[in-house]
Amino acid sequence: MKVNVAMLGMGNVATGVYKTILKNKEIIKHRDDVEFNITKILVRSLDKERDTLIPQEILINDINDILNDDSIDLVVELMGNVEPTLDYVSSLLKKGVSVVSANKDMISQHWPKLESCAKEGNSGLYYEASVGGGIPVIKTFLDSLQSNNIEKLSAIINGTTNYILTKMSEEGLSFEEVLKSAQEKGLAEPDPISDVEGHDAKYKLSILSSLAFHSKIPVSKIYCEGITDIKVDDIMYGNEFGYIIKLLAIGKRSGDDIEVRVHPAFIPERHPLSSVRDAYNAIFVEGDAVGKLMLYGRGAGASPTASAIISDMIIASQTVSHKYTTFRNIDKPSKQINFMDNWLGEYYIRLTVTDQPGVLARVATIFAKHNISLESLVQKSKGQDEVPIIFITHTAHEKDIMNALDEMKDTNAIVDVASLIRVER
Amino acid sequence: MKVNVAMLGMGNVATGVYKTILKNKEIIKHRDDVEFNITKILVRSLDKERDTLIPQEILINDINDILNDDSIDLVVELMGNVEPTLDYVSSLLKKGVSVVSANKDMISQHWPKLESCAKEGNSGLYYEASVGGGIPVIKTFLDSLQSNNIEKLSAIINGTTNYILTKMSEEGLSFEEVLKSAQEKGLAEPDPISDVEGHDAKYKLSILSSLAFHSKIPVSKIYCEGITDIKVDDIMYGNEFGYIIKLLAIGKRSGDDIEVRVHPAFIPERHPLSSVRDAYNAIFVEGDAVGKLMLYGRGAGASPTASAIISDMIIASQTVSHKYTTFRNIDKPSKQINFMDNWLGEYYIRLTVTDQPGVLARVATIFAKHNISLESLVQKSKGQDEVPIIFITHTAHEKDIMNALDEMKDTNAIVDVASLIRVER
Repeated sequence: MKVNVAMLGMGNVATGVYKTILKNKEIIKHRDDVEFNITKILVRSLDKERDTLIPQEILINDINDILNDDSIDLVVELMGNVEPTLDYVSSLLKKGVSVVSANKDMISQHWPKLESCAKEGNSGLYYEASVGGGIPVIKTFLDSLQSNNIEKLSAIINGTTNYILTKMSEEGLSFEEVLKSAQEKGLAEPDPISDVEGHDAKYKLSILSSLAFHSKIPVSKIYCEGITDIKVDDIMYGNEFGYIIKLLAIGKRSGDDIEVRVHPAFIPERHPLSSVRDAYNAIFVEGDAVGKLMLYGRGAGASPTASAIISDMIIASQTVSHKYTTFRNIDKPSKQINFMDNWLGEYYIRLTVTDQPGVLARVATIFAKHNISLESLVQKSKGQDEVPIIFITHTAHEKDIMNALDEMKDTNAIVDVASLIRVER
Repeated sequence: MKVNVAMLGMGNVATGVYKTILKNKEIIKHRDDVEFNITKILVRSLDKERDTLIPQEILINDINDILNDDSIDLVVELMGNVEPTLDYVSSLLKKGVSVVSANKDMISQHWPKLESCAKEGNSGLYYEASVGGGIPVIKTFLDSLQSNNIEKLSAIINGTTNYILTKMSEEGLSFEEVLKSAQEKGLAEPDPISDVEGHDAKYKLSILSSLAFHSKIPVSKIYCEGITDIKVDDIMYGNEFGYIIKLLAIGKRSGDDIEVRVHPAFIPERHPLSSVRDAYNAIFVEGDAVGKLMLYGRGAGASPTASAIISDMIIASQTVSHKYTTFRNIDKPSKQINFMDNWLGEYYIRLTVTDQPGVLARVATIFAKHNISLESLVQKSKGQDEVPIIFITHTAHEKDIMNALDEMKDTNAIVDVASLIRVER
């Protein structure tokens, strides 16, 4: 079966898709007898120098050449951004042309609209590549975990921050040092804000948690904290307690109560997520039937992303009905969900205090007043004017912790509330 | 959509399926509007005491009650064994009734027959639960890695042996001690041969490697070595070199050359498979597009297996055409494949030698004669009559290693070739 394909965009990932389709033509054809014939590629500039494999004559720069071409069976959208992409994709879906996309910004913010366009046109939107690169996480939620109530998902879904935290942990370098060298190596963007502040992970968590909990989880409801304030000292102290630091995207559900949050977290070194190093991604899921499940792999890069996109292309080509695409009948609007912000968790807290009698008693009193009990406490040095003390709490409410820390900030003998890092198990 | 289901067998996993369908009815229905109505359950004895949830009146003990019942849409086979199961399943498939099965013995040995029956009846055989319990590994190969040439898969697919090796490694107990306590806890079978000798993993590897390499990989072509000879000493020595021991099921492909083998192996402690502890399973795949991918989860147990079975049931119910089930157009018969037995690998070798001058020189001479170069060497003690020496080789051919060890066995100063463990990276 020959499938005529148009591509929107011809950047790094799109070039990877094009090359993989050429190189692995036989294996793509082997199982499902699908042959992709790329007939048009929408680009911004027709004159830009490109990989010599890309034939100049299929490049176009007017979207109408694709919208008005009835010979096109399938569109692969890799131009990114929300505008004008959303308009293009909506028009295609309404017209009955299925779209494969890796555009997490567009999908996380506009999937209800995209879904209704797809229903109108009886087409499908496929987006395996929007989260976790080559990791088949979307299909796992849509196809393999259908009989499960998903209780929790914890994901490392930003490669840049995982690379930075791995280097900080293993080489004792500061955030700034690692970021600089990652930028030099092309492992971090020149403008790293979206990655290091957790926004990229937040978009992806919106998609994953909407799928996991069968509910619309808007990006705006996700608590988000990045890794820019993480200090090497805390990574090392955490290590002594048997913890590894990761930027986690967490979704938890209990009935209609849902908490969704992106923040740095300490996890036990024996947790499977601890072994996810460098730029790798992993999604750890807990379901009531399946138990604990983890998917691990390369979350970015032209070639792994191409693997996910082509798998979607094959499925989209072979499917008579597209009813199982997009988010599949999510009928719980976000107003029916109780978005939690007063989570229960454990906490790593580092204070800087003056080294004098009675200080610890005052700190302990404040903790007790806010219903916080302590699992352990370590004072790291002695005999200096100011010393660090590290506390690991038992399970406590987020708001109690914040109130306790506010009170400590106003306490004379406590010089500084230096760090707060959540502990996940 | 109401789907009438018959079940073959009502053991532990079948009870898990039954209960999960009852308990998670709403979530199963939610996405695909599928409702399973279990109308008949084939059992050996109608009188056996069962979970009170199972209605007595749907139990039957004659397969013809199912074969001749045209109201049955789908059959779930969980009776195990090859005979008479193969006959039952073949008849159903030929008749046009799709079957969901977790029967790795039957599927690994008879899938060409099953596939032809399914084609004849335009039905489907679904077997996600046959390997890795709740881990979606079959769907990942069938749907998500289609554009990849799979180069290698390395899998921990037997929970019992992984539990035993984890306990031996972490608690320093012998194989016999751990096996006994595992049997007492119900974590190992009273007759553990199929697990500890690697046969269970071999059946599963036959299924996985057939899918991964688009080729028929018969069970009989798989090299198989179990864990019964693994000594705690070697686990500890390996640890000093930074290695963890696992029972791996390995498939490697290069063109038409395929090697398939199940044996204990040392892997670097930073390899993602090293973090797979206790009875957990994981499948580590290397594809030319996706790169490295790992799927981790519970490989056995009623509830995780039920998760996989119900996901297959939903897909089987919704699919108009079953052309994507079973092994999908594998057209390379095993006679076109060159099954390799002279693998290239690295090796951990422990010798017991007499502690006298010149012995090491003789060992080194034998290694050199067989083209084996050494990466490292440690003599563990001194001053006793007989001392252990441990060698880690550079990459060498399996047959050269075996020839060298044979020659060493005939050498006077070498008391014993105590252990040989392959090293995988």
